[in-house]
Amino acid sequence: MRLQLALDFIDIEGALHILRDVKEVIDIVEVGTPFIVRFGLKPVIEIKKEFPDLTVLADLKIMDAGAHEAQMAYDAGADIVTVLGVADDATIKGTIEVAKKENKEVLIDMIAVKDIETRAIEIDAMGADYICVHTAFDVQDQGLNPLEELELVGKVVKNAKTAVAGGIKTETLKKIIPFSPAIVVCGGGITSKKDKYAAAKEMKDLM
Amino acid sequence: MRLQLALDFIDIEGALHILRDVKEVIDIVEVGTPFIVRFGLKPVIEIKKEFPDLTVLADLKIMDAGAHEAQMAYDAGADIVTVLGVADDATIKGTIEVAKKENKEVLIDMIAVKDIETRAIEIDAMGADYICVHTAFDVQDQGLNPLEELELVGKVVKNAKTAVAGGIKTETLKKIIPFSPAIVVCGGGITSKKDKYAAAKEMKDLM
Repeated sequence: MRLQLALDFIDIEGALHILRDVKEVIDIVEVGTPFIVRFGLKPVIEIKKEFPDLTVLADLKIMDAGAHEAQMAYDAGADIVTVLGVADDATIKGTIEVAKKENKEVLIDMIAVKDIETRAIEIDAMGADYICVHTAFDVQDQGLNPLEELELVGKVVKNAKTAVAGGIKTETLKKIIPFSPAIVVCGGGITSKKDKYAAAKEMKDLM
Repeated sequence: MRLQLALDFIDIEGALHILRDVKEVIDIVEVGTPFIVRFGLKPVIEIKKEFPDLTVLADLKIMDAGAHEAQMAYDAGADIVTVLGVADDATIKGTIEVAKKENKEVLIDMIAVKDIETRAIEIDAMGADYICVHTAFDVQDQGLNPLEELELVGKVVKNAKTAVAGGIKTETLKKIIPFSPAIVVCGGGITSKKDKYAAAKEMKDLM
């Protein structure tokens, strides 16, 4: 299991500062969607420059023009880009094609997918590297959690690895571990803590 | 009918250069998703600075954290932000709430929505300003066109205005005009032409 730290509402200097603290205990750093909306791909470039050994995920949530957007992110240094599971098949396939050419990876974000099981089977067949179940930030206060979806996806995929995201804290992590996803995404559960290294290490030690 | 010029694969200086040419004949300038992926909200800030009278749409294609992402774009000077029709209701409602507070607007992008009619009725009831039918760039070569969807949405909405996007050129525009959408989005149909002013003016004159 790899720990992915999501950086969402932050500036570039703040991100680098956190990463200097936690780099030994995280595996993947996610340049989150709001971070990209604000600064474009610059955070990807700057993070990769200072931390070339960290895997960088650019959370583009691609919905269209998959090949073009993924190419830009890979050129900026991203190792993984995200595509929405609700996107057209052509968009998902186009992104996977570019990823394979560049020897990089694609994570499919299943946020707002209605029939998770059917769509996971389809996306698995397209050759995605990761399928990520994801409870939207905007619905987390409705008490939803991604555990059931994670179990469902884990049962049906043949090649893709699984990932899980959405408000994950230490308590949620304990329940997730039995399902052994390849990636666990954590944002506020680490970045909102005063001692970010301790928070990340506690999670990493559990994994 | 208003003409929206989509700027997608371009840099900031190139965008300003085109806008100096066409500003008299377009109504809305769209800072496209790939443009935002590359440069963040900087193009919105720079365009609004030089062209304060142009309406600027930030094509964020929001899928989550609607209120936060929309707030950032409005703060940068955007007049309209886009949210995906496939997003959770909470995300769409959260964005609309921020828009109303800021006296700005929201356009819902119906790309990849399966049941356009039902979803348009739901989104109309949420108070969206515009509902945009959109044939994905990645599926345009499959010969799909958004005309039927435009007709369908136009029939069911009570308050929202309609918009249409996806590979629109002069010939397509002629077929769109009878449906009187509030906004017609055109990108490559203008930006790929040598004389961009003439191309935009030809479209605007038809409208």
